[in-house]
Amino acid sequence: MSTKQEVTEQMVFPMGEKNDAFSKYFVGQSYLNMISTEQVVIGNVTFEPGCRNNWHIHHADQNGGQMLLCTAGSGYYQEWGKEPRKLQPGDVVHIPAGVKHWHGAAPDSWFTHLAIEVPAENGSTKWCEAVPDEEYGKLK
Amino acid sequence: MSTKQEVTEQMVFPMGEKNDAFSKYFVGQSYLNMISTEQVVIGNVTFEPGCRNNWHIHHADQNGGQMLLCTAGSGYYQEWGKEPRKLQPGDVVHIPAGVKHWHGAAPDSWFTHLAIEVPAENGSTKWCEAVPDEEYGKLK
Repeated sequence: MSTKQEVTEQMVFPMGEKNDAFSKYFVGQSYLNMISTEQVVIGNVTFEPGCRNNWHIHHADQNGGQMLLCTAGSGYYQEWGKEPRKLQPGDVVHIPAGVKHWHGAAPDSWFTHLAIEVPAENGSTKWCEAVPDEEYGKLK
Repeated sequence: MSTKQEVTEQMVFPMGEKNDAFSKYFVGQSYLNMISTEQVVIGNVTFEPGCRNNWHIHHADQNGGQMLLCTAGSGYYQEWGKEPRKLQPGDVVHIPAGVKHWHGAAPDSWFTHLAIEVPAENGSTKWCEAVPDEEYGKLK
C-alpha cells in the first residue's frame, strides 16, 4: 500500500485538481491533470484508497481504446468476465475498444496512472454501472 | 545534473538494453526499453551525459510526429532555427511531423524520457547530420 505522501513523492507529473467533471462516473475521490490535449491525449489520474471508476466501454469505429501506464501506488484493472488484475508501478495495460472494464486504486492504497487515449475514428465512452462494494471489497 | 543512480531510482520503467539498433543515429550511449508496441508505440529512452540523437524529421502524410514525456535527469530539445529548450522531469514536448529536431541529455547529466509515437498515415523518420560538438558544447 502507498500513502498520499508516497505517491506524491514518486509522481513526476503533478496530481492536479479534484476530478469533478467525471465524479459521477467514479466511486470515491480521484484527481486529474491533463498533461497533453493535442497529438495524443494523456491524463494523469490519481485515485484515493477505495476509489475506482464505473464499468465503462471505449467505443470506436476504428482503433481507439486506452492505455494505462502505472506510475505510483497500487491498483486494479478488470475486464468484464475476467479476474481483476493487480497493478503496480511499471505495469502497462492495453484496453481494446469495445471491452467493458474498470480501473482504480486498491482498497488500502493510493494509485496513479497515466491514461493514454488511443486515437480513434468516431471515439466515445459509454459509462455503465458502478463496481459494487461487495465485489470491490473482496480485493486486497 | 543527475547521476546514473539518481535517474535509475527515479525511473518507473526499466532502462532496458543498450540502444544498438539506433546507435548510428546517436552521438554517445543511449538505452531503449519498448514499453508498448501496440495501440500507441512507446519507448523509454535514457541518454548518458553528452549523448544526443542526430537531427531528424518524423514525416507523415497525416498526423504523426512524436511526444516526449520527461521523467528523470535533465536534457535538451531543439527545433531547427530555434534556441535549445532545457528539459526537466514533468516536461512534455510536442514534436510536429515535418519539423527537423534533436533531443538528448545535458552535457553533465543523465536524462530519461518516454518517446510516444503519434499514430501516422505513412509515417517514417529521416535521419540527418549529427549535432556538432561545437554547438552542443555550448549547452549547460
